[in-house]
Amino acid sequence: MPKVKFTPQNKDIDVEAGTNLLQAANQAGMYIEGDCAGRGTCGKCRIKITGDVNFSPTAAEEKHLSSNELESGWALACQRTVDRDMIIEVPIQKDAHLRKTTLAGGVEELVADPVVEKVAVKLSRPAVNDQTADLERLLGHLERPGLAVELRDLSGFPSLLRENSYSVTAALAGNKIVSIEPGDTTDQNYGVAFDIGTTTIMGSLIDLKTASVIAVAASTNPQNAFGADVISRITHASGGKENLKQLQDKVIEAVNMIIKDLLKQTRVARDRVYELVAVGNTTMSHLFMGVDPTYLAPAPFVPAYSRALEVEAAELGLKINPSGRITFLPNIAGYVGSDTIGVILATGMDLRKDNCAAIDIGTNGELVVAANGRLMACSTAAGPAFEGAQIKHGMRAAAGAIEACDYLEGEIKLGMIDDARAIGICGSGLIDAAAALLDAGLIEPSGRFVNPEDNPEKVPDNFKERLRQGKGGFEFVLVPAKESDTGEDIVLTQGDLRELQLAKGAIYAGLMILLKEAGIKADDLDQVLLAGAFGNYVRKESALTIGLLPPLPPDKIVAVGNAAGDGSKMALASKVIRERAIALPDKVEHLELSTRSDFQDIFIDAMAFQKI
Amino acid sequence: MPKVKFTPQNKDIDVEAGTNLLQAANQAGMYIEGDCAGRGTCGKCRIKITGDVNFSPTAAEEKHLSSNELESGWALACQRTVDRDMIIEVPIQKDAHLRKTTLAGGVEELVADPVVEKVAVKLSRPAVNDQTADLERLLGHLERPGLAVELRDLSGFPSLLRENSYSVTAALAGNKIVSIEPGDTTDQNYGVAFDIGTTTIMGSLIDLKTASVIAVAASTNPQNAFGADVISRITHASGGKENLKQLQDKVIEAVNMIIKDLLKQTRVARDRVYELVAVGNTTMSHLFMGVDPTYLAPAPFVPAYSRALEVEAAELGLKINPSGRITFLPNIAGYVGSDTIGVILATGMDLRKDNCAAIDIGTNGELVVAANGRLMACSTAAGPAFEGAQIKHGMRAAAGAIEACDYLEGEIKLGMIDDARAIGICGSGLIDAAAALLDAGLIEPSGRFVNPEDNPEKVPDNFKERLRQGKGGFEFVLVPAKESDTGEDIVLTQGDLRELQLAKGAIYAGLMILLKEAGIKADDLDQVLLAGAFGNYVRKESALTIGLLPPLPPDKIVAVGNAAGDGSKMALASKVIRERAIALPDKVEHLELSTRSDFQDIFIDAMAFQKI
Repeated sequence: MPKVKFTPQNKDIDVEAGTNLLQAANQAGMYIEGDCAGRGTCGKCRIKITGDVNFSPTAAEEKHLSSNELESGWALACQRTVDRDMIIEVPIQKDAHLRKTTLAGGVEELVADPVVEKVAVKLSRPAVNDQTADLERLLGHLERPGLAVELRDLSGFPSLLRENSYSVTAALAGNKIVSIEPGDTTDQNYGVAFDIGTTTIMGSLIDLKTASVIAVAASTNPQNAFGADVISRITHASGGKENLKQLQDKVIEAVNMIIKDLLKQTRVARDRVYELVAVGNTTMSHLFMGVDPTYLAPAPFVPAYSRALEVEAAELGLKINPSGRITFLPNIAGYVGSDTIGVILATGMDLRKDNCAAIDIGTNGELVVAANGRLMACSTAAGPAFEGAQIKHGMRAAAGAIEACDYLEGEIKLGMIDDARAIGICGSGLIDAAAALLDAGLIEPSGRFVNPEDNPEKVPDNFKERLRQGKGGFEFVLVPAKESDTGEDIVLTQGDLRELQLAKGAIYAGLMILLKEAGIKADDLDQVLLAGAFGNYVRKESALTIGLLPPLPPDKIVAVGNAAGDGSKMALASKVIRERAIALPDKVEHLELSTRSDFQDIFIDAMAFQKI
Repeated sequence: MPKVKFTPQNKDIDVEAGTNLLQAANQAGMYIEGDCAGRGTCGKCRIKITGDVNFSPTAAEEKHLSSNELESGWALACQRTVDRDMIIEVPIQKDAHLRKTTLAGGVEELVADPVVEKVAVKLSRPAVNDQTADLERLLGHLERPGLAVELRDLSGFPSLLRENSYSVTAALAGNKIVSIEPGDTTDQNYGVAFDIGTTTIMGSLIDLKTASVIAVAASTNPQNAFGADVISRITHASGGKENLKQLQDKVIEAVNMIIKDLLKQTRVARDRVYELVAVGNTTMSHLFMGVDPTYLAPAPFVPAYSRALEVEAAELGLKINPSGRITFLPNIAGYVGSDTIGVILATGMDLRKDNCAAIDIGTNGELVVAANGRLMACSTAAGPAFEGAQIKHGMRAAAGAIEACDYLEGEIKLGMIDDARAIGICGSGLIDAAAALLDAGLIEPSGRFVNPEDNPEKVPDNFKERLRQGKGGFEFVLVPAKESDTGEDIVLTQGDLRELQLAKGAIYAGLMILLKEAGIKADDLDQVLLAGAFGNYVRKESALTIGLLPPLPPDKIVAVGNAAGDGSKMALASKVIRERAIALPDKVEHLELSTRSDFQDIFIDAMAFQKI
């Protein structure tokens, strides 16, 4: 079988001839960017073939790569198959430079009230006149009727007891003994909280005695190899049990890698981690649990389950204590998952008495409104534009992403993450760029670029060359090739503006429907909470300029960081909050927008770039 | 690697040179008889090597095989190593001819009151205005708060529901959904009951709707390869996790073979078998569950657990419905296991108002006395003599075993199982033979053979040649070589009589201690119940003659068949009886005999062959 070597990571793999390079990279454990699941439409899985580069480009490659690039060996991984030993250069993904989001950025603090309790006991020794069995001896000391123990913990228990002079510590969770340990280990009680995003997976290791986050780690979701959006992944999972297993394996592996990292950072022992609490959208929950998500995709968008699922770590192959408990918080609906439960917990919306709205923009957009004692939620098909997907030079918020854009003194000023040379544009940069070009008068309220030929007076001289005709209409050059890190112009296209309009229109219209159902108007809102990494970085003024949000005083708009993730930490740290989370689906009214004609009406109006 | 072929079974295996033939047979899935775990002391693992037979016999082989046999290729499997391709003849084990024991031979009948309940439902279809998740839709119809479902059952549930027009059947056990099935399957509800004996494993398939036994199957316990008695197996298991796993794998494999047989006989589908209820001695329970039994062996004989263990079928790799529930009934003490719980259930001793005793003689002997509202139990180190182990020509009760022996009209008359030519002697035959030789005056009450030289007048002429000097003292030829199936004399040795005396003395003394603690005398017993296959076949008169039982009118002695196994069936069939079984350990007083001087006193007296 031919060998493929990926550089500079130096990962080798032997694959069948005919395997495409995207699959080969996937098998080698390499992450190559891409949004279209190998269909050749996104053009993001750029790699460079070294050595013999005399191949005929496909139509997709011709569309996404310049002739110079093709000549020097650049190709799309999804379009090339392995036909010999190959050495492939992979552009470095700066995942490690994901912008830090706040921890516990939400309204509430972590409370130390763990589900797992540790009890140290010193047992009496058995004798001929006290032949009580080991387990019953322990249970007698623990004095909790109805406790159950896992076989794996019982198997070696007799020796453990005797080797430790009958001093052991039991970790108890509910009516179950999760672990029996030598000596007194009551000072070691840990759990991990996870936010399983469609794009990014974030984990936190929490010392449950003090409810303090002692390490964090993140990675991209390797399910990306099967498409950037949930629909692509549902489609893949629907192809059969093997496919579903593939997707499940990917996320479990990534979570295990993060756990390993967290343990390495802190030197905490794997077996002292007794719980994992996760949030994620409904599709992520199904794929994590290995449950068929097929019927989430078509109307009426029905999940297999909505309740919180609790399973043993060993059942999912998760590398905490094998008897540890995995809890995926409950789903509200097919497109309103436990990530929204996390947002509600972290913002305390279920406890607040005022009127407020929360908007969580990740790969999908979820909205919650609390008003008049009611909680209402909906999802909007915002698309992943805010995460850089479907945008010509879109990228995730990593080093080299344009994250800020201003129209100042007749010029467009840019800011890049880590002050690096520009590679592309991320979600907050996209909104800023649209707002700046609106300010500069280069975009009409309808979302069209001003045609410089028809309206030369509207385009100042310094922009005349930068606003140019591209393949799919006008485009604006944000960074010329000579200043970019990719050696090509970084542009904002008419198509990009259309994607942004669809996304922001959907969010706005969803919010309006929730307010309508709650019987309040935008003016009645005391606060609008922006959740998610995106919410942290978007500039309120730009969001108001492009009409992503209704016109409100900017001080009513508050970024709350990764509220979904914070909710998972809160539910991990506190059993009272866990119970509150588990009960939430019954308290949240879900509105299905897809069939509402009033939503369509508002949506169409809301696509325009004017403060509404 | 050399290849070893076992004939006439025609099983091949490639093994490392140097592997001994007993291990090779074991790896090939062949069962070769043996009681000493390969130590060369029992001489039972006889095999015949074909081809080049020019090897030097070991001391063990010289002890157990004649020079004729050695010359014609007979050897002991445990003494020979594989050094080349070999063809091995294995004497046929007539396991299939195990004497049939009664089913439900106990006092109580099976009652149909199953733990698993099946409910067929027809769900409403989801719609945009009813987006209830699939699981919650089902649970809503079932109307049992708190039901949990296994991931494996949930995984494919969405498709199952839609492919069956929302008609499904749920199998419920306690607060768990064990199975979700297409259409209406309420007429299919099965379970299996197992008696995991040290020597023999017996399984019954029960239709839980009617509590009727619809198939039975049995096999030898393949843990035999690690020794015939529980102590050998505990010793092996104590050697490390791998060893424990080996023993667990053996019993699980055997149980799975029996299940396969039961399903094949009846064409019941594996997934429609929702429960397995097992009984066995405490060591068998630990090995079945994979729990370290080390501390059962030395005083104070402490089990790892006494409670009933309930685990999922998949956790143990048992091939019923993977979410099915496995229940091993509770242990009373280290040497009084759930087999005794089964005996108590089947005989109703916990409910009876009269005074009675039950004696279950398997590989070990357990005794129960019910008197004055109390239940007391003990075990005796009877040894496996009654199953033919440690007896020169001892064998299990299979075709060719001498099972009856009478002294009639000056002659010894024998009866063989299946009227076959004699191969050896089984437990009931051993007791009969001792009783017959006592009747004939050839054995003194002390247990010694009459010395024909000192007392020629006591030995009739027809026995003069048959009562002869053997290697370890006198021996009596039961069957001369020309009439036996093995081509050698079948004898009863002085050593055999000593084994019998130890075994019957221990049983007798144990019973006396229980009666003493209960404050009654043997005469106060209304009934003595003999449980186990042995109890079914032993002749009361012979048992009384040798003093295995105290002098009682024979009509007070009742054989109740495999009461332990019957108890497992009752607990499988009825949830009320299951609960009764689970609560029994708290009601049974366990007496530890090993340290009681009064036991030793009675035991020494009880070894004599006189009606006491």
